[in-house]
Amino acid sequence: MGENKDFVKEITPMEVDFPRWYTDVILKNELVDYSPVKGFMVIRPYGYALWEGIQAFADEKFKATGHKNMYFPLLIPESLLNKEKEHVEGFAPEVAWVTHGGSEELAERLCVRPTSETIICHMYSKWLNSYRDLPYLYNQWCSVVRWEKTTRPFLRTSEFLWQEGHTLHETYDEAQEETLKILDIYRQVAEDLLAMPVVVGKKSDKEKFAGAESTYTMEALMHDGQALQAGTSHNLGQHFTKAFEIKFLGRDNKEHNPYHTSWGISTRLIGGLIMVHGDNRGLVLPPRIAPVQAVIIPIAMKKFGVLEKAEELFKSLKEQGIRVELDDDTKESPGWKFNQYEMKGYPIRIEIGPRDIENNQAMVVRRDTLEKEIVSFDGFAEKINEILESMQGDMLKKALKHREENTHTITNYEDYKSSNEAKKGFTKAMWCGCRECEDKLKQETGASIRCIPFQQENLSNICHFCDKEAKHMVYIARAY
Amino acid sequence: MGENKDFVKEITPMEVDFPRWYTDVILKNELVDYSPVKGFMVIRPYGYALWEGIQAFADEKFKATGHKNMYFPLLIPESLLNKEKEHVEGFAPEVAWVTHGGSEELAERLCVRPTSETIICHMYSKWLNSYRDLPYLYNQWCSVVRWEKTTRPFLRTSEFLWQEGHTLHETYDEAQEETLKILDIYRQVAEDLLAMPVVVGKKSDKEKFAGAESTYTMEALMHDGQALQAGTSHNLGQHFTKAFEIKFLGRDNKEHNPYHTSWGISTRLIGGLIMVHGDNRGLVLPPRIAPVQAVIIPIAMKKFGVLEKAEELFKSLKEQGIRVELDDDTKESPGWKFNQYEMKGYPIRIEIGPRDIENNQAMVVRRDTLEKEIVSFDGFAEKINEILESMQGDMLKKALKHREENTHTITNYEDYKSSNEAKKGFTKAMWCGCRECEDKLKQETGASIRCIPFQQENLSNICHFCDKEAKHMVYIARAY
Repeated sequence: MGENKDFVKEITPMEVDFPRWYTDVILKNELVDYSPVKGFMVIRPYGYALWEGIQAFADEKFKATGHKNMYFPLLIPESLLNKEKEHVEGFAPEVAWVTHGGSEELAERLCVRPTSETIICHMYSKWLNSYRDLPYLYNQWCSVVRWEKTTRPFLRTSEFLWQEGHTLHETYDEAQEETLKILDIYRQVAEDLLAMPVVVGKKSDKEKFAGAESTYTMEALMHDGQALQAGTSHNLGQHFTKAFEIKFLGRDNKEHNPYHTSWGISTRLIGGLIMVHGDNRGLVLPPRIAPVQAVIIPIAMKKFGVLEKAEELFKSLKEQGIRVELDDDTKESPGWKFNQYEMKGYPIRIEIGPRDIENNQAMVVRRDTLEKEIVSFDGFAEKINEILESMQGDMLKKALKHREENTHTITNYEDYKSSNEAKKGFTKAMWCGCRECEDKLKQETGASIRCIPFQQENLSNICHFCDKEAKHMVYIARAY
Repeated sequence: MGENKDFVKEITPMEVDFPRWYTDVILKNELVDYSPVKGFMVIRPYGYALWEGIQAFADEKFKATGHKNMYFPLLIPESLLNKEKEHVEGFAPEVAWVTHGGSEELAERLCVRPTSETIICHMYSKWLNSYRDLPYLYNQWCSVVRWEKTTRPFLRTSEFLWQEGHTLHETYDEAQEETLKILDIYRQVAEDLLAMPVVVGKKSDKEKFAGAESTYTMEALMHDGQALQAGTSHNLGQHFTKAFEIKFLGRDNKEHNPYHTSWGISTRLIGGLIMVHGDNRGLVLPPRIAPVQAVIIPIAMKKFGVLEKAEELFKSLKEQGIRVELDDDTKESPGWKFNQYEMKGYPIRIEIGPRDIENNQAMVVRRDTLEKEIVSFDGFAEKINEILESMQGDMLKKALKHREENTHTITNYEDYKSSNEAKKGFTKAMWCGCRECEDKLKQETGASIRCIPFQQENLSNICHFCDKEAKHMVYIARAY
């Protein structure tokens, strides 16, 4: 176990310093690296493979619900950005400006897209004619730039990868239905793929997207008790379609502005994945998203046909559709390998040595529980598939349990304010709905209203932050 | 056939005005649209689906040969761009510069990546340690910006989508092997997926990538007799690895600079696809890349169970893995639909009416030849698959025949110079290898040396452009 220590030593325990634990895990695992441009990250192959997994899962769901992909220009003229008032106020302070093309100064500055509502609405206004053309169900996968002062890889960076859906509908109800349908796809990405439980609900007006009628969100709880906004879906009403004069001839033969939605998930989800499941040995990846689901490590591999058996198992797992690796490297010790793959969060490790050959079995170790199990070579691949399946479900349950244990109900605001401990996790509170209470909460505690959850409870008739009548039960937390 | 005329009228015949034919085809088919930023295009769903097809095919081949995807920042500091002399001279005149982030002026300008050698080499220099880490086989899918004066959608735009591979190797030979291996993958994308035959070979020093040791290319011939550079693979030697001080400890325990390659294909391939196969009715798509391979059009659909049969065929084709659509719209006439799908280039149209039900058959029309064939409902899906398979092969053969008929051998340079007709298509010529001849050819004829093909022929011992000894047989052509 000597080698074990070396790896563990490299990762700061999360209890000691959570941000350092996070940084250690992402850098040691080569998920990401800092780039020479401040706030911009390089996503390395192991990190990018996680993004490819999220893309594949979400893209399939988008397409199954009738959405198609497009691509809009990276650069947006300043005059377009300025068309929707709230939008430009929200985004102008954080955009990167292109002022020169080649050696020439441009007549009009272009911003690197922080999001694409404006340019997409401009094009939609050219294309849309009749209610027969609706709905418009389009999406794009791309990178966006938002000049951030304080950055952390995956969680908040000046450039990130995402998808942005932009749809148009004949009626308000259809736009609302779309907004919630997408939020549910996002919930599936979080819960079914990433085993990351989320609270779904509506954002307060203060926290909604710049230019939105209403913003819906999914919020996850990290190991350190902070919340992460993991994906948002906006009902934009007619704010943009009026500003951009998008019109269609309706069934009544009159001109109308369509209703509009936009929605996005990003590489930020990878940060959430790490902070929901990781431990002091490193990453812990749910099987469905893991780029490698099982690694086979032969021990004393030149003896008794160990290597041959390992190769045979490798083939049979591969045939079962399991993403498997065989580590037959002879330079590193088995112990070194065990720790290496624990750090990388591979869901299953399969150890096979001379005695196992004799006994027609191998040792299987689950990353989430570190439990060891002897598995017979008979029906081996099926059994591994079963373990992967249970592990996916168990990881979601474990994360859900952690969230429940860290979801509190406010008793009184003064207690909440004075206790740092109370501020860890989600806290349910009643809120009158006014901006003053929301601002006060943020200023006095650093916590914010994460969402008005769909699943409401009546904790009290009085707002916890003032004496007015309560309108909503909300989740509050400090957030990334 | 009245409806036919309307569609055909909208597309300028290619014999009349080829550039207008091209523009008509891409706009009427909604593959692309112009954006409010000059030279930037919007790729619409039907065009983007073609790109997704190319991505899926190429990405699988890259991964099967050991490559992994990453993502590097969009913005590159000016100081990094300046590190490799030839590279900066080649690219600086055409980059877009970011000078402000939010409201602050940046201390150093950042360029929007025109290609990513510089930032990737910067990162590689941080990561690489030992020969044991090699090869580095990485790729990224992204968009790049190159400020172009004259643009045409897909063919030359100020922003385009592409992939850029960047690999490092221990030896020159391994880098050269990689360069050619990728060129062959590109050839497969062109020929096996897009049915677009290509000539493969080496670029002259004048035409090579800025900073490359040698550039390899695939060149295709368009309908109008102009060539299109459809993909390039560069052996970069140690130019960048020395400039960026990328070093590794070799087997000899000494420091070395690795050998380096980069390679790319882009949305330009879609322009080639259109100009190789299209006709005066519109697009003609090879089955493997076609987003929709077959469309079923029921005629008099409410009678004799026509619609039910159409639905049954739809299901059976879908089960066979055919990308199929059923057009049961009742507002448009069958004739309108026939012409619409011909314009869209769907490989197969299936017409089914009351008499067909009686005769247990349907009429199948191939888009490439417009040939009609009666196909029995017995074994229908298998037969459609067979037709799609032959069509893919036939389209490649047809394009190859067109290229062969338009590949000439130069007799003497004066004749070539004086005849516009001679300049159509590829012309094989002998070349001494000197820059003066190459410049003269370009200046006097508008044609350029497209490549020194791998398949050499000895047409003469004397250079066709001067009196010196010939070194290479080259393909010359006017090019996009």
